[in-house]
Amino acid sequence: MSDLFAAHAEKLDRAVEAIGARTYWSAYPEHPKAYGEDAPVTGQTSFDGLLGTPFATDQVHDGYLEVAEGSPYGIDLGIEYPATSVAATVAAAVSAQRDWGKASPEDRAGVCLEILRRLADDPFTMAHAVMHTTGQSFLMAFQAGGPHALDRALEAVAYAYREQKRLPDPLRWEKPQGSRDPLVIDKRWIIRPRGVAVAIGVSTFPTWNGYPGIFASLATGNPVIVKPHPETILPLALLVRTARGVLADAGFDPNVTQLLVDTPQALVGKDLVTRPEVAIVDYTGGSAFGTWLEQNATQAEVYTEKAGVNSVVLDSAPDLTSVFRNLSVSMTMYSGQMCTTPQNLFVPESGVRVGGETMSYDDVVAAFVAAIDGLLGDDARAVAILGALKGAATLSRIEEAASTGTVLSESRAVGSPDFPDAVIRTPVIVEVDGTDTAFASEMFGPVIYVVKTSSTSESVALAKKAALESGAITWLAYTTDDDVMDQVVDAAVDSGVSVAFNLTGALFVNQSAAYSDFHVTGANAAGNASLTDGAFVANRFRVVGVRVEPAA
Amino acid sequence: MSDLFAAHAEKLDRAVEAIGARTYWSAYPEHPKAYGEDAPVTGQTSFDGLLGTPFATDQVHDGYLEVAEGSPYGIDLGIEYPATSVAATVAAAVSAQRDWGKASPEDRAGVCLEILRRLADDPFTMAHAVMHTTGQSFLMAFQAGGPHALDRALEAVAYAYREQKRLPDPLRWEKPQGSRDPLVIDKRWIIRPRGVAVAIGVSTFPTWNGYPGIFASLATGNPVIVKPHPETILPLALLVRTARGVLADAGFDPNVTQLLVDTPQALVGKDLVTRPEVAIVDYTGGSAFGTWLEQNATQAEVYTEKAGVNSVVLDSAPDLTSVFRNLSVSMTMYSGQMCTTPQNLFVPESGVRVGGETMSYDDVVAAFVAAIDGLLGDDARAVAILGALKGAATLSRIEEAASTGTVLSESRAVGSPDFPDAVIRTPVIVEVDGTDTAFASEMFGPVIYVVKTSSTSESVALAKKAALESGAITWLAYTTDDDVMDQVVDAAVDSGVSVAFNLTGALFVNQSAAYSDFHVTGANAAGNASLTDGAFVANRFRVVGVRVEPAA
Repeated sequence: MSDLFAAHAEKLDRAVEAIGARTYWSAYPEHPKAYGEDAPVTGQTSFDGLLGTPFATDQVHDGYLEVAEGSPYGIDLGIEYPATSVAATVAAAVSAQRDWGKASPEDRAGVCLEILRRLADDPFTMAHAVMHTTGQSFLMAFQAGGPHALDRALEAVAYAYREQKRLPDPLRWEKPQGSRDPLVIDKRWIIRPRGVAVAIGVSTFPTWNGYPGIFASLATGNPVIVKPHPETILPLALLVRTARGVLADAGFDPNVTQLLVDTPQALVGKDLVTRPEVAIVDYTGGSAFGTWLEQNATQAEVYTEKAGVNSVVLDSAPDLTSVFRNLSVSMTMYSGQMCTTPQNLFVPESGVRVGGETMSYDDVVAAFVAAIDGLLGDDARAVAILGALKGAATLSRIEEAASTGTVLSESRAVGSPDFPDAVIRTPVIVEVDGTDTAFASEMFGPVIYVVKTSSTSESVALAKKAALESGAITWLAYTTDDDVMDQVVDAAVDSGVSVAFNLTGALFVNQSAAYSDFHVTGANAAGNASLTDGAFVANRFRVVGVRVEPAA
Repeated sequence: MSDLFAAHAEKLDRAVEAIGARTYWSAYPEHPKAYGEDAPVTGQTSFDGLLGTPFATDQVHDGYLEVAEGSPYGIDLGIEYPATSVAATVAAAVSAQRDWGKASPEDRAGVCLEILRRLADDPFTMAHAVMHTTGQSFLMAFQAGGPHALDRALEAVAYAYREQKRLPDPLRWEKPQGSRDPLVIDKRWIIRPRGVAVAIGVSTFPTWNGYPGIFASLATGNPVIVKPHPETILPLALLVRTARGVLADAGFDPNVTQLLVDTPQALVGKDLVTRPEVAIVDYTGGSAFGTWLEQNATQAEVYTEKAGVNSVVLDSAPDLTSVFRNLSVSMTMYSGQMCTTPQNLFVPESGVRVGGETMSYDDVVAAFVAAIDGLLGDDARAVAILGALKGAATLSRIEEAASTGTVLSESRAVGSPDFPDAVIRTPVIVEVDGTDTAFASEMFGPVIYVVKTSSTSESVALAKKAALESGAITWLAYTTDDDVMDQVVDAAVDSGVSVAFNLTGALFVNQSAAYSDFHVTGANAAGNASLTDGAFVANRFRVVGVRVEPAA
């Protein structure tokens, strides 16, 4: 089994170095072209082969389940998944834990990296699976669903490995006793897992958000039951199948990783996560169920990433063209369905200092709307940026939002030549006043609020209030004034929100880089955990000390 | 403020080294004589001056509270404590957090180490305070309540400091973009506290068990409200007063550490820990309230150390005299009121291999009982070992236990020449069968069970069953057989119990060494946290990332 560790040790070492240095690094190429000429066709064929058939599995199951998985691009997925029960998967996980929990951190890391290698070898199948279940554009699905998700997985393995390797083992402990012989004790420490882990998938970024918890649990010896979102199943089903193959090849019980699929009519999450054997729950998704988990799965360690209200504070800039070039992309990519998408743009009614001159509020807002309309004016480009809408609730939120203020730009349907049934909409841009309340709640999807405030100080205060009440993951501020920057940083720290300044280039605030940026601080209602820090891994295992008095 | 860090940097560095190396180290001398000739008298005078008076404090309060604090040695303490309310202490903590949370890890560590230094300079006052509130013997109160507690505090500070210093800050992140210019972002990370921390003290080891959580929270920027056990207040009141003095001298709001005292008639714990501002709770005490905390203080990170059933498995030994010399002390010191005291001695009915010969069950048990009776036969020695009993429930448990099996040695009252009203009892030794159930629950106090089993395998199985059902912190096994040792280790890992083997010398299983041994694994019902590991500190702070695109 240590063969796998040896095969991947260099990459793991490099990842451990990366989480310390936090400078740029990636283990998996993000450009589709890096994977060779045949890869796209092979991946497409492989994906097509999955459609309309029962999902092949070696997992013991009781027939197949018709599911609610649907494609925002309107294609018929028609995949059925193995029907497994909560009781059976939990029992199988407990059984599988025995050997997996006793494996060394090296052996477990080797298996984890081999799973990542196999996934990395076929990113196109996963890209199609993510695209067609989430509505992401192909390129986003390829990158965020493939290499970027793999990077976040490797990051979690690196954290877990480093944390487990902190103890010198074995050692001899000697306590001086003055003139008498010292006390001598031989000590070692044995790492054991917490117990059965559950990973509950999200509908929009099942791999990127799911892998960190799954791999952190696996690397620390916990068997993982993967319960995908009932409407986005395939990406995590592919992960589980790949993981089981690696586990079996490495001589472990493949039930170290199991798939448990449910339907909206018969959700199993609450039953699953409150089983006494379940010791860890990772969750990404809506706030209601996330908060329920935090309050009710009290027998387990619960790691949540929920929702939030992300804000942009516009104070001053050398030039607004580059500001809006960046903002128009970050506020519209994947139709605002990223948990990091900025929803609110706060603009002072007195206008914005641009290159030393004051530009009026009206002119600023007009330029912002024009930038978004311009970006999305071309249908082909709009399709590539917007992707498609996942979920009927997201679609209906457009109209809901339009009724909460003055519509500056209406949402329009965009046609896709490749997918005539795709649900694609440009965002609605709604203007409200700082005294309004609509913008202070999350309006997940293609909804942009322009909030007219009395001053930048009020902009910051409103962003902070929304973050403290509803949570927030990202802030973005534009300012040339160091005092304003300090003020924003102070408010961000108080609110527990990561903040970026003056992004005008090709980096968007929505994006966080593995090995460098933390995703979610864990310090406000947007989630209680962070991808990935020490706290995300340190409590997934426990240490049993063994002390032996040497024979006389 | 950084003066304090500079003054203590060397000690902190040494402590950080110690938690990595885990070999023997101590920062505070454990021998009373190390503190000079005058220290005992000064400490006694200082302690006497506290008795029968209101406890002086700079904390805003509303009069003084008559409390239920009592001395197991029967002296009249008569100390009144400042009356403070939950609402007022929480509000003051929130206010104090602002500057403390923004202080650097260095400044906070400096303050923490200065608090420890002041406590270390006067260990005799604390020793009397611990002795007379807990019933510990003077020497135990001196060592466990003073230097050993300070070592565990320093260990927690070292963990907290190391964890906060993991991030390089600031740095420039550059992502290559092929032939185009790289993406360049300046990054820094700001550590912020979780929020208001609450430390709930235990009646028996208020400082040793309380300091780690208190100092871990302080070192990571959280203000701490210290709520002592209503019957053991003085030791933590002294800590809070010392801490407030250091904080004020260092220019911080002294409300970073506050005392909140309650009475059995008006307990405030539940109200306090469920306040939304409370983000961290540390608790040592009985299982009922600990489990309540885990299930109900869901808005906070809860760290518990509760109760358990500790076991000794006697399989084989070169010689039983040294075995029982060690065991008789560990099972009787402080009358079994340590959470690490072994309660059950499992002996196979077929007897024990001793130096190659089989010694019959009856002879083994007789030798064990004789060893205990012999150790405690002399009243002066018995007083020094047993200490006094804390709490009426502990006293009543003796009789309760006697009714559950065959009494091998009755409990007897021991008189103390110095403290005629002290409540001192030798343990009752009760023999039961492996099929009985009494031994499987914790009988906190001077109760020893000898459990007759069918074999060592059954001994191990019963110890495991009790640990899984009721929790356990320590196991001790005596065996000369490597297979048995493996079997015990396996069971210990499965049960999440630290295990020691073949202790015959001056180290007792009850004792765990700071910087080396973990106290409680966190993996069974005896508690969800460990003193001290990465998980104990990593989630007490959060990190806010700041990204800035450099000006063009």
